[in-house]
Order: sequence, then C-alpha cells, then structure tokens
Amino acid sequence: MRFSQTLIPTLRENPVEAQVVSHRLMLRAGLIRQLNAGIYTWLPLGLRVLRRVETIVRQEMDRAGAQEVLMRAVQPAELWEESGRWAHYGKELLRMKDRHDRDFCFGPTHEEVITDLVRREVRSYKQLPLNFYQIQTKFRDEIRPRFGIMRGREFLMKDAYSFDKDVEALDVSYKAMFAAYQGIFQRCGLEFRAVEADTGSIGGASSHEFHVLAESGEDTIASCTNCGYAANLEKAVSGDTEVASDGTPEPMARIETPNKRTIEEVSSFLKVPVEQTVKSLIVETEEGLIMLVLRGDHVLNEVKAMNALGVTQLTLPEPERVRELTGVPVGSIGPVGTEITIVADPGTQMAGGFVCGANEAGWHLTNVVWERDLPAPRFVDLRNVTAGEPCPRCDSGTLVLHRGIEVGHVFKLGEKYSQAMNAVVLDENGREKTLVMGCYGIGVSRIVAAAIEQNHDDNGIIWPMALAPFQVMLLVINPKDKALMEAASALEKGLSAKGVDVLTDDRDERLGVKFKDADLTGIPLRVVIGGRSLKEGKLEIQSRRGGDPTTLSPDDAVEGLYQMVQQELALNASS
Amino acid sequence: MRFSQTLIPTLRENPVEAQVVSHRLMLRAGLIRQLNAGIYTWLPLGLRVLRRVETIVRQEMDRAGAQEVLMRAVQPAELWEESGRWAHYGKELLRMKDRHDRDFCFGPTHEEVITDLVRREVRSYKQLPLNFYQIQTKFRDEIRPRFGIMRGREFLMKDAYSFDKDVEALDVSYKAMFAAYQGIFQRCGLEFRAVEADTGSIGGASSHEFHVLAESGEDTIASCTNCGYAANLEKAVSGDTEVASDGTPEPMARIETPNKRTIEEVSSFLKVPVEQTVKSLIVETEEGLIMLVLRGDHVLNEVKAMNALGVTQLTLPEPERVRELTGVPVGSIGPVGTEITIVADPGTQMAGGFVCGANEAGWHLTNVVWERDLPAPRFVDLRNVTAGEPCPRCDSGTLVLHRGIEVGHVFKLGEKYSQAMNAVVLDENGREKTLVMGCYGIGVSRIVAAAIEQNHDDNGIIWPMALAPFQVMLLVINPKDKALMEAASALEKGLSAKGVDVLTDDRDERLGVKFKDADLTGIPLRVVIGGRSLKEGKLEIQSRRGGDPTTLSPDDAVEGLYQMVQQELALNASS
Repeated sequence: MRFSQTLIPTLRENPVEAQVVSHRLMLRAGLIRQLNAGIYTWLPLGLRVLRRVETIVRQEMDRAGAQEVLMRAVQPAELWEESGRWAHYGKELLRMKDRHDRDFCFGPTHEEVITDLVRREVRSYKQLPLNFYQIQTKFRDEIRPRFGIMRGREFLMKDAYSFDKDVEALDVSYKAMFAAYQGIFQRCGLEFRAVEADTGSIGGASSHEFHVLAESGEDTIASCTNCGYAANLEKAVSGDTEVASDGTPEPMARIETPNKRTIEEVSSFLKVPVEQTVKSLIVETEEGLIMLVLRGDHVLNEVKAMNALGVTQLTLPEPERVRELTGVPVGSIGPVGTEITIVADPGTQMAGGFVCGANEAGWHLTNVVWERDLPAPRFVDLRNVTAGEPCPRCDSGTLVLHRGIEVGHVFKLGEKYSQAMNAVVLDENGREKTLVMGCYGIGVSRIVAAAIEQNHDDNGIIWPMALAPFQVMLLVINPKDKALMEAASALEKGLSAKGVDVLTDDRDERLGVKFKDADLTGIPLRVVIGGRSLKEGKLEIQSRRGGDPTTLSPDDAVEGLYQMVQQELALNASS
Repeated sequence: MRFSQTLIPTLRENPVEAQVVSHRLMLRAGLIRQLNAGIYTWLPLGLRVLRRVETIVRQEMDRAGAQEVLMRAVQPAELWEESGRWAHYGKELLRMKDRHDRDFCFGPTHEEVITDLVRREVRSYKQLPLNFYQIQTKFRDEIRPRFGIMRGREFLMKDAYSFDKDVEALDVSYKAMFAAYQGIFQRCGLEFRAVEADTGSIGGASSHEFHVLAESGEDTIASCTNCGYAANLEKAVSGDTEVASDGTPEPMARIETPNKRTIEEVSSFLKVPVEQTVKSLIVETEEGLIMLVLRGDHVLNEVKAMNALGVTQLTLPEPERVRELTGVPVGSIGPVGTEITIVADPGTQMAGGFVCGANEAGWHLTNVVWERDLPAPRFVDLRNVTAGEPCPRCDSGTLVLHRGIEVGHVFKLGEKYSQAMNAVVLDENGREKTLVMGCYGIGVSRIVAAAIEQNHDDNGIIWPMALAPFQVMLLVINPKDKALMEAASALEKGLSAKGVDVLTDDRDERLGVKFKDADLTGIPLRVVIGGRSLKEGKLEIQSRRGGDPTTLSPDDAVEGLYQMVQQELALNASS
C-alpha cells in the first residue's frame, strides 16, 4: 500500500486527553480516532492490526476444535430475565426499547444467547463436547471510559462457551482452551502470564486470567520465582503462615498514646515494630458493618474481603462517618470489646500479641492475643501479598510482583446458566442432565493496546512481527525520482507475491518527517530506497527494534526480507 | 471438518414461519436460527458462507483502491442532529440513552460518522480522492421483519463512502465502485443486473441498484433485449411516446353509462379499447389532493408519482373517502371540469382522444382531447412499464421484466452531508471547497439469502462454488469401517493442503439421511466413500447441480476435485 493513498493521520504532539502510552501512540500513529467517549473508529492502519489479532485468535480457536458462530449485538430482555441478569447487571448494560416498546440490550456478553441456542438444538450427550466461539462487537457502558480502547465502551471480543456433560469433561474443555490461549498470546509475540484469578460473585469453580506484562498494567500479578504458581493479586496468597505459638506473651496492657493516630505514629511512639501492630478497618456492606483486622503493614484487598464476607458491596467510609457509626475516632478503633462483627487476616495471629486501638481516643492496647484477650474471630485471607514473601505452592520460591493488562479470561461456569435456563441433554440412561459450561473471553481490541504498552520506545510503537499492520516499510527518499519509485514497486511486487505486506512511504515530505513517522507507526523492517547505498547497489534494512542494519543487494532483498519476517514469526509459532 | 463434530441442525420439515425459499432452506440446512423477530444467530455452516461473501467483497473493494476502516455501531445523536436525520429518520432508527442519559442510536448507516472523520482529518484537495469502506453490523428496526435474513433487523453490510473535490471526480469514483460491484457479484457466481434506480427523496444525482435475479424477488426490474438499458420499475421508462397528432378526433361527447364503474365495464359497454380510456386517481399528499390521470390499462407507480409531485407521503384513499372528498363516485371521476390539480402520464395523450368519467354518477365523456376540451396538465411519467414495450434508449430493443432482489446500491450523494456538516478541503487556490460524496452499499448477509433464492431445487440449496461453505462433501457410507474413514482422512488432508474445504459426513446415520442432508446443505461436489465402486478402485464424484457423475481413481481424486473446484471458480473470476 502507498502511504500517500492511505489515511494515516500521524500527529507530532501528544494529545492531551491520552493518559497512557498506548492511547497516545494509537492516536499519534493514526490507528484510531475517537467518535465519542469510549467509542473509537479504527482507521486503516489500526484495523490491519486488529485483523491480525483476529486471524490468530480464529486459527487457534479452530485448531482447538471450537466452532465459530455469529450471535447478534441486540439481545431480547426475556433471556436476561431468565438468567436473572436483567435485574442485576446494572448500568454497564446498555438497554433500549424497539419500536414496539419491547426491551432489548446491546450485549456485553452472550451466555444467555448461546445457552438458549444449545438448549433448543442439542438433545443428547452424544453431541458433546461442544464449544462455540465468535469474534464480535460488544458494548459495556463504562462509567468512566478511559485509556483509549483499553477501557472503551464498544470493543471487539472473542467469546467462547463450552458445553459438557459433567465437570470432568469440562476440565478437558477448559484445559484445551487454556492451551489455545497460550498459543494465541505466544503467536502474537507478547510476553504474558496465565494467573489464577478470582471467580468473584459467580463463585464456585476455577478461573484463570491471561495478562500481558507491562509496567502500565492496571492489575498486579504475583508469580513464584521457582514453581509455576502465578495469581492475580485478588487471588494470590502468601506462603507465610506464622501463627501465635511459642512462649507466653506479656499480659495485655492499656497505654496512653496522645495524638498518635496512624500505625506509623503509634509504632514509633511505642517502639514496637509495625509488624506487631494491627489495623482495624470498619467497612459498610449490604450485610451491615464489619470490622476487618489486618497486620499494620498489610494492605487490604477489597475483592478478597468481599469474597470472604459474601457481599457484593463494600465501602470504606470516611473518618467522620466511622466516628459517627462507632463513636470512636478512626485511629483508636480496635477489636477488643467491640460489638461489631470481626473478620481477621491470619497474619494478625502473631507470636507475642499485637498492638491495637483501645476504642477510646488517645489510648491503645498492647500484647493483645486472640482467644486470651478477646474471642477468636473468623480468620480469612484479606490482604495483598508483597514481593519477597514465600510461595504458597513450593518450598523454595518467593513471590515477585508484575503489572499486567488482562487480555483473556477462562472460566469454569458450571451450571449457573444452564440450570437457570434449563439447558439439558439426555444422558446414557435417557435421563435429563444439566449441561456444565465454561466461558472463555479474549479482548481482541484490547490486545492491540496491550501490545503497544509492552512494545514501544520514546519514538513510537515497536510492533511484534505477527501484529504489525505491514511487515516492511519502504521509505522512498525522493518519490519524484522515477528510478527510485520503480525500485520500490519491484520490491513491493516481489514481497507481496510472497505474502509480505509492504507500506511504501511515497509522500512528498521532508525526509525527517518520514523517518519520524516510520518510527511512530512501528513497522518492524524499514528499507530506505535512495541515497548513496542504492547507488552502490545495496539496500539497508533497519529493524525497528534497533541493532545494526543488514545490507542486501536489490536482487537478494525480496528473499532476505521474507526470511527476516519468517524468522521472527517462527520464534513465536504455537506448538 | 467433520459433520459429527459440527452443529448443523438440519430439519426434515418446512418451518411454518418461513414464507420464502431462502428462509426455509437457511433454517432447514442449519445455517441460521432465529433469536428474536428479525434477529438471527449464524451457525457454523451459515457463517462460512457469510465469510465467503465478506472475503470477496473485501478483496474487490481493496482492488478498487478503497480503504477499509471500522466504525462503531453506537453513534451519538449530535452527529445525526447536524445532518438533520435525527428528527427525520423515523422509527427504523433504534435509539437509546447511555447511563449519563445522552442520546445514541444503533447505526443503520454511517454517513454522519465518516463525514465527521473526514472533516477532521482531511485538509487538502491533494489528499483526494478518498474512499472508505467497512464491513460492519447494522440495525434497522423494520416494522415487519420478514423473509429471514432477507429483511432482518440486525444484518451485515458493506458500506463505502467516497470523497471528491468535484462532480467530475465523483463520476470517476462512482464508476470505479460500479465496476467493483460487477466484479463482486460476478465472483459470487450470481446472475445479476445493474439497474438505474430511483434516487428518491435524496434527489439530484444518479444511482444504480444491483439485483440478483430470482423469481421470488421483491423488486421488478426492466431491461432491454438489445442494448444495456436496465432500470428498477420505479425508474424504468417506456420508449412508447405516442402523442395526439394526426387527424382531428371527433368532438367530445357525454354518454350515459349506467352502473358501469370499472375501466373494463366502461370499455366493453362503449366498445372502445381499454387503451383509449383513462383512469383518474385521487391521491392524498402532504400538499393536498391531486388527480393522477393514466391510460386505462396502465398501472400507477407510486414512487414515480411521489418524485413527480415532490411529496414524501402519498396515499390512495378508500372509495368512500374519495366520494366524500369529491362528491363523485370513484368510477365516474374525470379530469374535465374538476378543480383538483391534475398531473397526467404522457400515455394519456393518445390520438383520437380518450374516454373518462364525467364527474357524475352514470356518465362518461368520450373523445376528450387535452388542450381542446380541458387545459393541458403537467405531463410526467407516472406508470409501470410493461413487458414488450420499446426500449427508451435504443431503436430495436424491447423491454423484458425480471424479478430481482436488491443486494447493492451505489449512489451519488453530492453535497447533502458534506454541506450540512461543513466537510471542506482547501482547493488549488487555498479556498474552501465542500466535498462531493458518493455512497455504496452491499447487503452482505442478504447476498447469502439471494444466492439461495436463485440457486436451489426441491431438495435444497445448490451453492455457487465461490459461496459454498465447503466445496467438497465426503459421504462415508459406514463410518465404523476403519478403512473407509482412513480413505476419507487421506482425501481431506490432500484437499485441505490445496486449499479446498471439505465436510466429511461421518455420522452414524442411515444412508438416506446423509444423502438428504447432502442435498439440503448444497455442497457443490459430493464424493461417496464406500460401496462397490471403492472396492473397484473408483470414486464417484457427483455435482450438486446434477449431470452424470465423474469417476476418478483414489490417487487422482485430490487433483481431480481441485481442478473441478478451480474450473467453476475461474468461470466467474472478475476481470
């Protein structure tokens, strides 16, 4: 393709509205343009990348035996009422009424639709296992769309749904999808981790997320330096399980701590390590007030807390509100003598007892021991793990933390939808059996942004070969020079015949502009057509990743470039 | 692919809800399933056909120099307010509010969005011509969705929009699209006609529709037996332009015609050919009552009438209402002496004058001549042409009528949107110039249905090779016979390596069921694996179109089948 005939509106300046690198670079390289908050038009260059991802996803899903279907964006409310989600989904569901005043939504996901299809069309266990996928436009009415397409409202997703006769068979389907996902991200040329994930309010069975590693990621993931353990921070647990045991701590004491409010202030005033203090957090939930007790230096993970408490709403009220609710200032709240239900992190069972607020302004208690000084609460993991803690799975590893961008999620749904919607098959004995489901999502458009977050430098995008809109860019120094354009055309033609996509910058622009745009758009291999080297019968091939240029004669250029493309693709071939 | 592992839920019976062949066969062959009125899920077999069409459309659009983009389904109301369509589009526009109570619609078309993009990103005439296309999901809230996906609500469309600096340049863009469309339908293997079409209320410039010929088509199109003239009935004109001329007709006379109301009754009572009578039709429009006068045997075309009158609403009131409005019974209305504005078809200027109602029950006038007996009205083409009439373009041809299904529409938009939305570029002299637009649509999903309407028999679909979900079907007589399955696998593998897609019917079903399903699903080439011929070292290849089977040895089968596929595709290759 020719640059001059393609809309690639590159920008010199960083758009002020873009807060993250991928959003900035997608705008600057002319991949997308915003139509409305969280709604983007994909321009030619961006769409080519999106299609690359789509093709890889499709090929690997087909290879894994999934069947492609296409469900529609507009879904009738009746199905969502059957599953119970019409009432519960909330405002992210874009609802509408058709001309006959019937309720519909713009589907953010398709569990209901596929379950409805399967219950109508599948009768016998002999037809199982089944796995249907689609690559389709979704809408989620995010309250604050941000980061460009990373958290947009309309986006492209691959969603798949498996149907099995029992949980053992689901396990096989789940593993096949897990492997397919590994193949997909591998082929995309991305550094990624599959991590154990929180199953959230859907409950029950297991779930994994796939994260592209990038400093700017919204999620934190923990992995072991030794074994394969990896989990989202919402799920990661520490191997550190110290509990009160040896020796007898001093008796509990009540000590005045005037104007000492924070953990740090109290710890330094009492000359007690922070690790020997606890913090008592009052949270409001739909089940009422709860006091969460954690070690002073630990950080509450709200998702863990919600799962532990079995609630869907959890807020940490402002200090004034806490005082209103408890009659005690925030810094002095503690578990001893309170009437509020207590749930404590196991890390508060420290040998030697702990320091906590005395439920009176200006006073704290020391050497507090569960069971001795106050009733033992329910202990449940409530906190974020930290780097360097021991792995919960193996003996010798420690945890390291990464930032990640979630691009895939596989999930054992179980019978949640099939039961609510009565999706059954007849088993070997002619008896009805509720189907066991899995669901498997990939954020196709999000992968494009995640790839940029992971692969860029100060000058622009550095596309992995498999995702690049074009693999080769020809930069014609002077497009008015007929001989140069002929050389470019010959190269284009030769490469195109071998399936290599070429963008030729034939614009009548200053050379500096062309080099800047070449860096910005991030096409992996760049060939300058013109200048001294061509006169000397040489072509210089520069990789966008840097390194020394490769020199080829024009006769060898097609084969040489083709091989360079193939080599990088082969590195990431799925097994 | 294996039949046993693919959801192809064929049906023995005709679904009662399906009124047209394509709807029936798409359900019966397991291509689609209805989710809701006019909303269909595409199952694996149907989706494969949809993707074939999509690929052909994409390749030909790319070849024509159009740039692919992807705009979103959800569009903000503001843009539609700028173009004026928010108020005028009516109930086919599915409207919704987001969580912040802002107005949006599910786009039925994207003129506003693309014009907004271009006005922001394109500055100079040097960047022109531009032509953007997308293949994207549209929604039109049809009042009566029917005929399956033929008139569904959510559908897949290719829409393209060209931007030029003037009408001459638009003409070039338009012709390029016209040629691309011919290539597309040709490659799809469909018999089609490009016809001149009504430009409707958008007015002004020219427009062509592309119709797939099929008896069940909703549209009638006229074409010349001699020259290239072809037009939608709404636009087709006759070469028959007889006007009053030679000789002097008899004087006008008033004759009693007791109880003669219809044209036929009057004509036979007066012994005057129907061709010498006229009918006077009272129509109600937003501009008031109008009397339309046509020759007795001619049929009013309401679209022509609306265009002629410049109105957007036109109804033919019930007889009682006509009597109320005019004081005259329907059968006796006529143009002489009326105070209602008259518009007449040129066919009423017959030599010898005409017979018409006398505006009094039981009386008619004969030998009525425009200008002599009543003022000459505005003459404008108001009627349907009929088969056998002379061509308006050439001397020797006559018109023939076909039924057609509209699958494409190309349109010179002019400045309608660019002016309303101020989309301008700077011209050679640095002056702002409003862009001149064209728009070009193809109903991608509709092509699938149209192809079936044109290509089927009593037993099922007969896919054109280019659209077939699989080109070859292997029918394994006894899948429990290992040798047969091995023979099938070898053939699958060989064909797949040559890019031929194979569906193997490996189901444990009666042979009759398999043959019936093979006919129903319409895969072009069928190979029976098993039976006597295989024992004799022969494979019988049967074309779904009929004819004698071809016999090949197993060693030659891959190459032979590959050649058969290529031959049919080559017949329809675009030039």
